[in-house]
Amino acid sequence: MVPSWREQLTVRAFVVSALLAVLFSVIVMKLSLTAGIIPSLNISAGLLGFFFARLWAAAEARLGLPRRPFTRQENTVIQTCVVAAYGIAFSGGFGSYMFAMSSRIAGQATEANDAMNVKDPSLGWMIGFLFLVCFVGLFALVPLRKVMIIDYGLSYPSGTATATLINGFHTPQGAKDAKEQVKTLGRYSLFSFLWGFFKWFYTAGDDCGFESFPSLGLEAYERKFYFSFSPIYVGVGMICPYIINVSILLGGILSWGLMWPLIEKKKGSWYPATAKGSDLHGLQGYKVFISIAMILGDGFYNFVKVSLRMSTAFMAAARRKSTLPVSGSGDGPARSLDDDDLRRTEYFLRDQIPMGVALAGYVAVAAVSVGVVPKIFPQLKWYYILAVYGMAPVLAFCNAYGMGLTDWSLATTYGKLGIFVFGAWAGASHGGVIAGLAACGVMMTIVATAADLMQDFKTGYMTLASPRSMFISQVIGTAMGCVIGPCVFWLFYRAFDNVGLSGSDYPAPYAVVYRNMAIFGVQGFSSLPKHCLTLCCVVFAAAVVINLARDLAPEKVSRFMPVPMAMAIPFYLGSYFAIDMCVGSAILFVWERVDKAGADMFARSVASGLICGEGIWSMPQSVLALAKVQPPICMKFLSRSTNARVDAFIQTLSSKT
Amino acid sequence: MVPSWREQLTVRAFVVSALLAVLFSVIVMKLSLTAGIIPSLNISAGLLGFFFARLWAAAEARLGLPRRPFTRQENTVIQTCVVAAYGIAFSGGFGSYMFAMSSRIAGQATEANDAMNVKDPSLGWMIGFLFLVCFVGLFALVPLRKVMIIDYGLSYPSGTATATLINGFHTPQGAKDAKEQVKTLGRYSLFSFLWGFFKWFYTAGDDCGFESFPSLGLEAYERKFYFSFSPIYVGVGMICPYIINVSILLGGILSWGLMWPLIEKKKGSWYPATAKGSDLHGLQGYKVFISIAMILGDGFYNFVKVSLRMSTAFMAAARRKSTLPVSGSGDGPARSLDDDDLRRTEYFLRDQIPMGVALAGYVAVAAVSVGVVPKIFPQLKWYYILAVYGMAPVLAFCNAYGMGLTDWSLATTYGKLGIFVFGAWAGASHGGVIAGLAACGVMMTIVATAADLMQDFKTGYMTLASPRSMFISQVIGTAMGCVIGPCVFWLFYRAFDNVGLSGSDYPAPYAVVYRNMAIFGVQGFSSLPKHCLTLCCVVFAAAVVINLARDLAPEKVSRFMPVPMAMAIPFYLGSYFAIDMCVGSAILFVWERVDKAGADMFARSVASGLICGEGIWSMPQSVLALAKVQPPICMKFLSRSTNARVDAFIQTLSSKT
Repeated sequence: MVPSWREQLTVRAFVVSALLAVLFSVIVMKLSLTAGIIPSLNISAGLLGFFFARLWAAAEARLGLPRRPFTRQENTVIQTCVVAAYGIAFSGGFGSYMFAMSSRIAGQATEANDAMNVKDPSLGWMIGFLFLVCFVGLFALVPLRKVMIIDYGLSYPSGTATATLINGFHTPQGAKDAKEQVKTLGRYSLFSFLWGFFKWFYTAGDDCGFESFPSLGLEAYERKFYFSFSPIYVGVGMICPYIINVSILLGGILSWGLMWPLIEKKKGSWYPATAKGSDLHGLQGYKVFISIAMILGDGFYNFVKVSLRMSTAFMAAARRKSTLPVSGSGDGPARSLDDDDLRRTEYFLRDQIPMGVALAGYVAVAAVSVGVVPKIFPQLKWYYILAVYGMAPVLAFCNAYGMGLTDWSLATTYGKLGIFVFGAWAGASHGGVIAGLAACGVMMTIVATAADLMQDFKTGYMTLASPRSMFISQVIGTAMGCVIGPCVFWLFYRAFDNVGLSGSDYPAPYAVVYRNMAIFGVQGFSSLPKHCLTLCCVVFAAAVVINLARDLAPEKVSRFMPVPMAMAIPFYLGSYFAIDMCVGSAILFVWERVDKAGADMFARSVASGLICGEGIWSMPQSVLALAKVQPPICMKFLSRSTNARVDAFIQTLSSKT
Repeated sequence: MVPSWREQLTVRAFVVSALLAVLFSVIVMKLSLTAGIIPSLNISAGLLGFFFARLWAAAEARLGLPRRPFTRQENTVIQTCVVAAYGIAFSGGFGSYMFAMSSRIAGQATEANDAMNVKDPSLGWMIGFLFLVCFVGLFALVPLRKVMIIDYGLSYPSGTATATLINGFHTPQGAKDAKEQVKTLGRYSLFSFLWGFFKWFYTAGDDCGFESFPSLGLEAYERKFYFSFSPIYVGVGMICPYIINVSILLGGILSWGLMWPLIEKKKGSWYPATAKGSDLHGLQGYKVFISIAMILGDGFYNFVKVSLRMSTAFMAAARRKSTLPVSGSGDGPARSLDDDDLRRTEYFLRDQIPMGVALAGYVAVAAVSVGVVPKIFPQLKWYYILAVYGMAPVLAFCNAYGMGLTDWSLATTYGKLGIFVFGAWAGASHGGVIAGLAACGVMMTIVATAADLMQDFKTGYMTLASPRSMFISQVIGTAMGCVIGPCVFWLFYRAFDNVGLSGSDYPAPYAVVYRNMAIFGVQGFSSLPKHCLTLCCVVFAAAVVINLARDLAPEKVSRFMPVPMAMAIPFYLGSYFAIDMCVGSAILFVWERVDKAGADMFARSVASGLICGEGIWSMPQSVLALAKVQPPICMKFLSRSTNARVDAFIQTLSSKT
């Protein structure tokens, strides 16, 4: 018995969703503000959602309330709502475009550091802005869901995987396994939380504590090669594919081990010797712009590739469609219309969302947006926004279609496109930097939410959840995210007063990168230090070539080739988190060799536990910081010679008192 | 087929023994120089002996040499030889009486700190002295072995346990289990070794590294409450009974948490405010003498108790013996003369050691000793030594008999007796301190080796090993120990130039305690600070009362009562190693609750692995120290306020350069 769409939307589902939305928003926020790598947390969300909803159902039964079984449709609703909500913590750009507008990030470059091109974060306008732009994407593609899910039969690998997981949970064995996995997750969460708490005590001051542990020696520490004892990144490493972790490490070795030391030798010749640590006219400039070049190269290649694949597939489908107008299953490779699929199609088509609602919704939200967003960003004229909303459905369709084929969302790439197009259109003197970044935000949220929604429709299709309940859940989740995301960011921003500063605990690497892309887009190449453009071109080309080689080489070879996008991140940040992630990889590798079944069953739970635990800890940590409770001890690492002098100094201190 | 006694003594047995003797001597030395608590390492020695001999046998087979099976008798020979050898590392007094003679320990007191009462360690005289005194004990009790093992049927719990272990190894299932256990031991050894190595890098300077980790806060660290990250003590904690670990912790809390802070408040009134850290006229004096009082109280109680039990049992046996002159098995409670026992008795009586050899050996060694030892210690007159050798057989018998009954060796108690008797006899002006300590050494080695030998005879009896091969193996092991012990001590002494200093990594707590006992014995109570004697008397009485209560209370209650001897150790040292040991206890406790079978099978292997690994690491560590290779980094712990000042200081340092 599949419950009706109204029955799928329960109060307990949304309470659990809100809880998990906060948890995962904190985790995503922490990750975006530290290394900027965010693994797929769907499985963790699914596990925890299942666990809490079951707990709730059990509590209801205990209290003698009428027993309502926890269905897989309800589970899907939770999943959708949570993913939509914490998705905003990412696509809201708190670690990228939104934060890039702030004066703190602007202060790290001399270009475009003026009132026209700076807008400091504040809770009010961030929430308002998100409410204005995040719902547009939801309406954009609703009418196309039957075409994409049933007619084209797009695969949406992640959405399908989530559905398989949820379907698995709702079998007796699956429920038992899930319980075990939740237990493991809980145990590792607790460990990771307590470890985070323990570490905190030793962080009184800069360069104190386990995050500054020169575990590979002081020399390597100077070059940012050290294990930073972060369970969160060990967990991320266990979830990310091996090749991603290895690529990051390789990128770190290439940049901090080779390129930067070589460039540093040119100090005084390539760049002024007076340039300080975070000055973009010095070494920092090379780091940021070479990193941008690699990200853009990778983005460019993938954009072209996905577009090409999409248009061929689209045309082929259109051709076939015209000759097979009756069936809705003409597309998928080797796809047979079995009983399951028939039933799924039936349920999927039962609850319709009227075309009129979708259209009216899109026009209404867009109209309000066009009217109000320029009030928030005077630099973003109303006609820019109108232009975005004119293109948006096409771009949203492209992204949703590409994601259905390849599982790869190009939302950030479309966002970067927005930076360059609208930044150049506005020009530096009219606040082009802010205009570009804001346009990036509008673009990115539309294409990201549209693709997410389509993926959720796929999940719903597989679990027999109604598209109507999926849509409503996504709307509610988005609304939650629009409030939770900015609040969580605000918590971090107020609690730690060095968020966004290079070298701090929360360097927010992408904020710097995005701002510099915007400056780049507005001012051209004038802001680059000597030879930097040449290096950028080389790196851009290298990214394209490596990607091409990965795709053309036989799988045997290509699976050992690095991913340029992953290589780019340590260019700016250093490899410390890469070493944590590789430790995670190593643990998983050994585990899979020793006990394959156990690893398959529990590795994700362990990883999720490690991520969640430290993620949860960042909440009390922020609260402590807000309450001005400082850790009591500094664990410091000194070279032997410095230590001798410091010891002598401490002697004089204590003899004085 | 039991091999002949000659076949039991193989070359490979002694090569393996030598190897293990070095390993375990290093471990015992490290333990005696740090906290002074030495757990029973017999099981580890048995496991590793089995492993290496099997490895050797396998290698012989692989090389095509004639295959000689590895028998349990040979295994017993290895066990005996190793235990005899590393026993000297303890009874040689490198952490107690021998080191107590040195000027470094003498310098910590103002009393008896003159040339007559100081003798610095040197490889030559230490080896000579040990050779002179260690063999006497072996000859003393040989003629009595039939009486003690067969006629009295003494149980020797540890000897029996070792025999059971060895017998177990030489069954097919036992060999398989042993292999698994050795594997576990190896894995944890490796971990512990690598951890020791890793820790080393962060110890450039005093109070640096994990040994100084204020894991429970800076306040607790000042009072020596912290987890010191030493796998060696975690392992020791896993081997020692729970009550011992808890007693140590309790002692630490009572002393460093309560008594010392209270006494410290009397600074200036009870003791001069000018007294520095290690001055025995200050707080340190209270620590040392209260600790001594507790040890003496415990020793006194146990001496009386064992003597009483012994004499009753002895008299009962003598009475029964006179009525049952034929059988050799009249004593043991509920002991039946079954087939096994008959066979054992037959083998035990087959290879005799002629009475003449034993007597002649005793007289010869004693004579040489009487002649030569005064050359090493002019303070120890030849007639003192003669007196010792007159009493020795009786004391040796007492100790061997007591150990057979209770598994408790009172060797150190007899040693302390020697300190007081001969110290007083010689008097301070004639070097009574050295005389007392040297007499303590002579006494202790005799009673310790005699009891060990008898225990080995018991093991040999159980494993059908020949008494003759046992005796020879013990002789060879003792000879090895006489060389290895001093050499290992010398390694530590030369490598770390603060061995024996209070507060250093190797405080050698018992060296200080023994020296102060000697001063005490020679000079009386004049050296004590104010009210110290009263406190000492209270503590002495408390030790007796607690012991009495332990013995009189029903087992349900008594098993929760602390052991005074264990409580005394942290009085002087602080509780850091107690916390490590309690962590070991906690691990074992949880493990036993979660997986009893696994814990029973592997807990000892894990513990031994942890002990061995860090023990092995201390060899390369000493070599590095000798080669003046210093660790590169100091991991320092500063309070927040100090850290701020130090950071400012480091700023000025770097701006200067």
